[in-house]
Amino acid sequence: MQLTRAADYAVRVMIHMASLAPGTRTSRTELANAAGCPEQFLSKVLQDLTRAGLVVSHRGNTGGFELPPMHHAASLLEVVEAVEGPVRLNVCLAGNGACDRQSWCSAHTVWARAQDAMTAVLRNTSIADLAVQQHQQQLQTQQPSQLVWN
Amino acid sequence: MQLTRAADYAVRVMIHMASLAPGTRTSRTELANAAGCPEQFLSKVLQDLTRAGLVVSHRGNTGGFELPPMHHAASLLEVVEAVEGPVRLNVCLAGNGACDRQSWCSAHTVWARAQDAMTAVLRNTSIADLAVQQHQQQLQTQQPSQLVWN
Repeated sequence: MQLTRAADYAVRVMIHMASLAPGTRTSRTELANAAGCPEQFLSKVLQDLTRAGLVVSHRGNTGGFELPPMHHAASLLEVVEAVEGPVRLNVCLAGNGACDRQSWCSAHTVWARAQDAMTAVLRNTSIADLAVQQHQQQLQTQQPSQLVWN
Repeated sequence: MQLTRAADYAVRVMIHMASLAPGTRTSRTELANAAGCPEQFLSKVLQDLTRAGLVVSHRGNTGGFELPPMHHAASLLEVVEAVEGPVRLNVCLAGNGACDRQSWCSAHTVWARAQDAMTAVLRNTSIADLAVQQHQQQLQTQQPSQLVWN
């Protein structure tokens, strides 16, 4: 019951991009450095984010990855699900007859409530808010910070 | 970010045992049937529950697995952690310097809040309560039920 490394890196990347000026195109190398992630591993993560429409990939000499302004408001849950697919705390929560015990299993509703409690926190947190908070925390701890749009 | 099959089966087994009369010793075969789980797979699960002290394993002709009365009150979280170890929604939550970004990473606190929200639901649900609820739901849906102590 643990977030994948890929989803964790996706969140790091999104927070970094949300701290840059709108329209900024960032290289995979810069994103890998910002996320503390092996560049090769990040390729798949960026593919997932691009496929989900959260990030735009530009080709060519002036290419790079861009976070469109509207997706600064993406929630942590959206980013996680772009990489992992729908969050399902237990396989029985997938619906569509995923479990033949559902009509009488008392644990089923508890898994559902636990999942709802967790996803509510992730749904109510935006990448933009995290970028601002991280900038403040980096200043307090004297870390390099790159927030430029706020 | 999904419960392991082993933890799911552990919860099913515990609910089944909590529905039996105190002192009942149950065979692995019966538990496998009740949990809808391959018997071989259940061996490891029962080992984990026994090692955690939640279940007692008796050897010999009158042997079997027993759920001591005090552990009817075990929480869903205790059962999950007996099999999976401590719930950590992200590796950074393990503490002890598990992540060098912790002092400034804004996502860290959100993972912690999401984990707390989820584990609170699991912590506040006892196996005994689930056994009673399941018995009622089995009666309503005309499933075989074995609750004998309530």
